[in-house]
Amino acid sequence: MRYVRDNIACLEGYTPGFQPKEADFIKLNTNENPYPPSPLSIKAMKAACEESIRKYPPPLADDFRDAASTVLHVKPEEIICGFGSDDILTIAVRTFCDQGDPVAFTYPSYSLYEILAGIQGAQSLIVDFPEDFSLPEELKDTGAKLTLLANPNAPSGTLIKPSTIKTLAAGLAGILLVDEAYVDFASDNCLRLIRECDNLVITRTFSKAYSLAGLRFGFAIANPHLVNEMMKVKDSYNVSAPGMAGAKAAIEDQKWLKKNVDQIINTRKTLSAGLESLGFHCQPSETNFVLAEAPENTVAKELYQRLFENKILVRYFNMPRLDHCLRITVGTDKQIARLLAVLKEILNEEEM
Amino acid sequence: MRYVRDNIACLEGYTPGFQPKEADFIKLNTNENPYPPSPLSIKAMKAACEESIRKYPPPLADDFRDAASTVLHVKPEEIICGFGSDDILTIAVRTFCDQGDPVAFTYPSYSLYEILAGIQGAQSLIVDFPEDFSLPEELKDTGAKLTLLANPNAPSGTLIKPSTIKTLAAGLAGILLVDEAYVDFASDNCLRLIRECDNLVITRTFSKAYSLAGLRFGFAIANPHLVNEMMKVKDSYNVSAPGMAGAKAAIEDQKWLKKNVDQIINTRKTLSAGLESLGFHCQPSETNFVLAEAPENTVAKELYQRLFENKILVRYFNMPRLDHCLRITVGTDKQIARLLAVLKEILNEEEM
Repeated sequence: MRYVRDNIACLEGYTPGFQPKEADFIKLNTNENPYPPSPLSIKAMKAACEESIRKYPPPLADDFRDAASTVLHVKPEEIICGFGSDDILTIAVRTFCDQGDPVAFTYPSYSLYEILAGIQGAQSLIVDFPEDFSLPEELKDTGAKLTLLANPNAPSGTLIKPSTIKTLAAGLAGILLVDEAYVDFASDNCLRLIRECDNLVITRTFSKAYSLAGLRFGFAIANPHLVNEMMKVKDSYNVSAPGMAGAKAAIEDQKWLKKNVDQIINTRKTLSAGLESLGFHCQPSETNFVLAEAPENTVAKELYQRLFENKILVRYFNMPRLDHCLRITVGTDKQIARLLAVLKEILNEEEM
Repeated sequence: MRYVRDNIACLEGYTPGFQPKEADFIKLNTNENPYPPSPLSIKAMKAACEESIRKYPPPLADDFRDAASTVLHVKPEEIICGFGSDDILTIAVRTFCDQGDPVAFTYPSYSLYEILAGIQGAQSLIVDFPEDFSLPEELKDTGAKLTLLANPNAPSGTLIKPSTIKTLAAGLAGILLVDEAYVDFASDNCLRLIRECDNLVITRTFSKAYSLAGLRFGFAIANPHLVNEMMKVKDSYNVSAPGMAGAKAAIEDQKWLKKNVDQIINTRKTLSAGLESLGFHCQPSETNFVLAEAPENTVAKELYQRLFENKILVRYFNMPRLDHCLRITVGTDKQIARLLAVLKEILNEEEM
């Protein structure tokens, strides 16, 4: 199209998960948390939505950085905040990749990585995960300026050990960004590596475990040298006043987080076991969703469709390696019981 | 620096206006609105800060687009929303400019334009405003992929007529982005041109006239073809749930806006007249600030400093053509009376 960069004109944008208008859907498609955020966070957000909102927010979200540094045992200057962790991913691509530079990431993973590379005009180097979603050997030697790795990975839900990530980072010539959007549901994380690896950026979000997807708040932890450069690229005021206040109160309420996460991990066990008993094959999940390969002689897309007709939304990806699978968010026990019951019915009826 | 793009490493980031910790400062430095936002907006934001915030917001901010299209008499598909109008400016640069492409803008104007070009690795073509801040002839023929024009302009406060803008747009080979951040305080605007000019993008913000700087919400109006391309570049969820709700309620409350704007325009007259009577020379302002050239035989930077000592913050730019000026936000009548009284004292004392 006239006026527009070629790489943008030929780009297909990111497709967000479907948000139904009707409230009577059971939504297990966008990995939202079924439980509310901390009441302290709700209180703090509301307090920020008063007359004081006429003023600009602190550009670096200082109050949040101070609170997060205490909770996570890092320094405030090792933290950069953003409008969701997507904002941080965008900032990273713009900080580290010139047009034409190689950007490496795995497949299947978060589909936004390829789009962000496309927007920047960078060159995507896509490395396939092995069958078991362990670290692909080829990722170690791509020559990329930036390597993006979701860990735990989406949509597989699998986790690569921090010790393996450390070796990867040490061998790379460019930046390694580990996207820990789901890490609060996992058994380990890479935070302790940032002092050892000067090329490591870790991103976190409040959209999943903290139940604040609508607030748009994410952050990264990295060596202050990297943080300083990324600060130049971010929009001046890329955090809202309610965003800073809500995220600060949420990260300070670790008790609420733990209760919430423990419940989801419990339900995840029920979900995986239930799916397996129906003939699905599930990846071992360290997230708030399960990637389930549909039983033999069934068609995943049809199962998706039948669930939809029953007012249950899950995620189906019409893409290689995923087109036999459903990605199912861990909802409440009641929602998951309903999902499993409906799936059982469908599988019986269809005699598929 | 290692790992970082050269254009980023050598970049100096944007410097936001100073936000004092103490509440006893009279803040006339960041063009914030001294009056609160619409009570309906406050109510709507708070309602969005409930349990429902656990869900992702509508990616395109549909509710706002519908409301704004009614108020502004445009179509929803002519609107793209963002996290403040800075987000929209960033999106525009990334949609229309390849690395190395020319980006044109005037001087002095919003200093972010040069930084955004620098981040993109685009080539800045800077065209000086004439003495009277009318449209510079040279802007018509730069060959730029993107021309950025703040109208009304900051920090001069001056307005170029829409008919002149229309001629400019018609003659340009690339996109003309008219940044109307301050337009709610002005006597005219360019909205009616978007149907006539297929290369025109108009940006608006809720940070000034709507008193919602802390919320971070802005939008652009343009031909749907341009909107569609910019949609590909924006972050998937670049508007928060409180952001959409608050902006929707605010734009629907035009009565509140008008009352607020009328008051500020009244106070602006008092401010300009008061400054002129003290020997300042003021640009004719169509915004919520006044650019005032300090009286002969005075030093603007010293006046800034003396005001600061008296707990009054104004903006001083240590830059060509601005270093003899102060940019003063239109506060309340009481704040402006205090400013004028203190300035009078300073000028008398110093016998400058």
